Amino acid sequence: MNYIFSDKIASLQPSAIREILKHTADPSVIPFAAGNPAPDAFPIQEVQRITAEILAENPIAALQYSVTEGYPALITVMKDFLKSHNHINSSNPNEVIITSGAQQGIELSCKVLCNEGDAVICEDPSFIGSLNSFRSYHTRLVGVEMEQDGISIEKLEQALKTTPNAKLIYLIPNFQNPSGITMSLAKRKAVYELACRYNVMILEDNPYGDLRFEGEDIPAIKTLDTENRVIYCGSFSKILAPGLRVGYVCAPKPVIAKITVAKQCSDVHTNILSQMICHRFMTQCDIEAHLKRLRQIYAGKCRLMLDGIKANFHPSVAYTKPQGGLFLYCTLPGGADMVKFCTTAVAEHKVAVVPGTAFLADESAGTQSFRLNYSTPSDGQIVRGLEILGELTKKLL
Amino acid sequence: MNYIFSDKIASLQPSAIREILKHTADPSVIPFAAGNPAPDAFPIQEVQRITAEILAENPIAALQYSVTEGYPALITVMKDFLKSHNHINSSNPNEVIITSGAQQGIELSCKVLCNEGDAVICEDPSFIGSLNSFRSYHTRLVGVEMEQDGISIEKLEQALKTTPNAKLIYLIPNFQNPSGITMSLAKRKAVYELACRYNVMILEDNPYGDLRFEGEDIPAIKTLDTENRVIYCGSFSKILAPGLRVGYVCAPKPVIAKITVAKQCSDVHTNILSQMICHRFMTQCDIEAHLKRLRQIYAGKCRLMLDGIKANFHPSVAYTKPQGGLFLYCTLPGGADMVKFCTTAVAEHKVAVVPGTAFLADESAGTQSFRLNYSTPSDGQIVRGLEILGELTKKLL
Repeated sequence: MNYIFSDKIASLQPSAIREILKHTADPSVIPFAAGNPAPDAFPIQEVQRITAEILAENPIAALQYSVTEGYPALITVMKDFLKSHNHINSSNPNEVIITSGAQQGIELSCKVLCNEGDAVICEDPSFIGSLNSFRSYHTRLVGVEMEQDGISIEKLEQALKTTPNAKLIYLIPNFQNPSGITMSLAKRKAVYELACRYNVMILEDNPYGDLRFEGEDIPAIKTLDTENRVIYCGSFSKILAPGLRVGYVCAPKPVIAKITVAKQCSDVHTNILSQMICHRFMTQCDIEAHLKRLRQIYAGKCRLMLDGIKANFHPSVAYTKPQGGLFLYCTLPGGADMVKFCTTAVAEHKVAVVPGTAFLADESAGTQSFRLNYSTPSDGQIVRGLEILGELTKKLL
Repeated sequence: MNYIFSDKIASLQPSAIREILKHTADPSVIPFAAGNPAPDAFPIQEVQRITAEILAENPIAALQYSVTEGYPALITVMKDFLKSHNHINSSNPNEVIITSGAQQGIELSCKVLCNEGDAVICEDPSFIGSLNSFRSYHTRLVGVEMEQDGISIEKLEQALKTTPNAKLIYLIPNFQNPSGITMSLAKRKAVYELACRYNVMILEDNPYGDLRFEGEDIPAIKTLDTENRVIYCGSFSKILAPGLRVGYVCAPKPVIAKITVAKQCSDVHTNILSQMICHRFMTQCDIEAHLKRLRQIYAGKCRLMLDGIKANFHPSVAYTKPQGGLFLYCTLPGGADMVKFCTTAVAEHKVAVVPGTAFLADESAGTQSFRLNYSTPSDGQIVRGLEILGELTKKLL
């Protein structure tokens, strides 16, 4: 038969990254395109021990249906963590729900707030997984240019002035994916003031915040939320394990109530064994020591990549110097063919990077940028991959 | 601030069952309202052993990001299982995707096929979780009356004739939730023919099919699918453990491709540790012996409940006699106040049942029915609960 799909899904394409990642199933391809935590970042022995304990002590609860809101003990722990660690008021008038990754928190925030045709304002470039979530509800994406210290405030105000039915401003303030840029405190305050003035909600996505290896922590926009208009999404993917698919949302109670209803329709509740693993991990392990170890791993890998770029790249290639997270962003000079660069890199030289077009609100707009990830490759792959990419920059530029 | 929610979510209420289940957090309430597998149905020792083996042998793969389509080894096993066990063609032109419970398969089927305002035709009554999924995409629900051998074919044709933009017929052919009714083979064929004639797709939900404890298996509608218009959803929730949130969808390749794109936006992929647990469970354990044990458990509990009804209920109360699954459906005689009966049962007598209104396509329509579950309560609770409900039927009728 001839399948006719919904308008919202018919035009949605598989993530360009996931398509590139299929190339990288070949283990001889150097994986700068992925976003996986480093394998040695996983606390394997702790997970082994914790999981065995849960299944020995409380097997029925770990296997039975649970409540949509999340494992109550984990919610309590996350509220305390958000308060003590992120200085976020996570109780009245706010509430916390456990989600199946931060991705679900982002998707459901869009579902409960946006009608088809409403606008979502986002950083340009931004995380393709979130952009596709917004697209899957037939919203209009309005991209706002990034500067070295975060979104352009002037252009954001322009967008808020001229965009009808803007419902959400989507932001990744720390070590943004894909740019690696961190938003300054001044800009966080300015963004929040604009959101209040134009009566729009903010969706703050912070998967990488705990992976700062340089500079000082900057308060989350949620800490400024005197008007209760910020939805804050966090995740265990980068600090524990993405395969567990556990994230959380802290937002005003009425918003969490609607997200809960939408989540019931989506997957009933998040895998409860994984929630119990996260709970014991947070309460039995030394989280600060674990995070310190992660920061050391990623500081080393980022340094190695920056050194490789400096040593090998054509000097006309610009790049960001992240203070944390997993990504940096390179920009070829005007006139260079970025898509050809990325295609040649993977097809002829077995180095996979992601063309910046994948991260644009309007994918048909041009960009000279591509994304590099330093958490997935081994140190040897980073060194070798940058020699190869460096040669390619010199050949093509 | 004043929160304005999307039209599709604004009117959606929390599931009435989940609200009743909150009453039942009180352990002194007899839980006939839930739908949990019996605690002794969980293969705890196998899950303990399998999980330890996975985390010892393959910890990185169990914790790292994985592909949206699902764990490839599990997909292969499920294709074989669908072929050998259910006689379903699960390969070309069909494909299989692993979902976060069958609930996600149902939700995403609706998302990829239905625009807002399109119609979903369903059995009336039907599973509230699915009905709310459909509602959450602002579809119109068109309920079609149930008979003792399944949906009324005459009324289904009437609905297909008169409903504009009907995109899906949603059916639970085996031991339906809430009614406990099984659709005859003749009706399965008739439904399929109507779907072909009116060019509508069928969404076949079969979470309970393996729990038949009486009578002969009846082929799934998917086995009749010569025109590739059936989306078949299965689940590990009732045969292994619902807390793992692992289900699967077998559907024509173009439909699975769109569901995959939509799932990327939703939760990236299903918890990979749980997928690996399901895979080892299917390949290392004696599934047929396990299913036989489950059927014995539920046969015994259903028998106990039917005996209790017969011994205690006012003779004017009608009830279904399921050949499998977890539920039966009781109907009070005309004139009795069903809602008062259910409310009094939980509030004054601590026996929780679900009023049938929760399962109607149009919740404001009246019904005299309520749902009883026999998998969650202990045998002692079943005996005592039916004495209490029986007395109440005699008092109120």
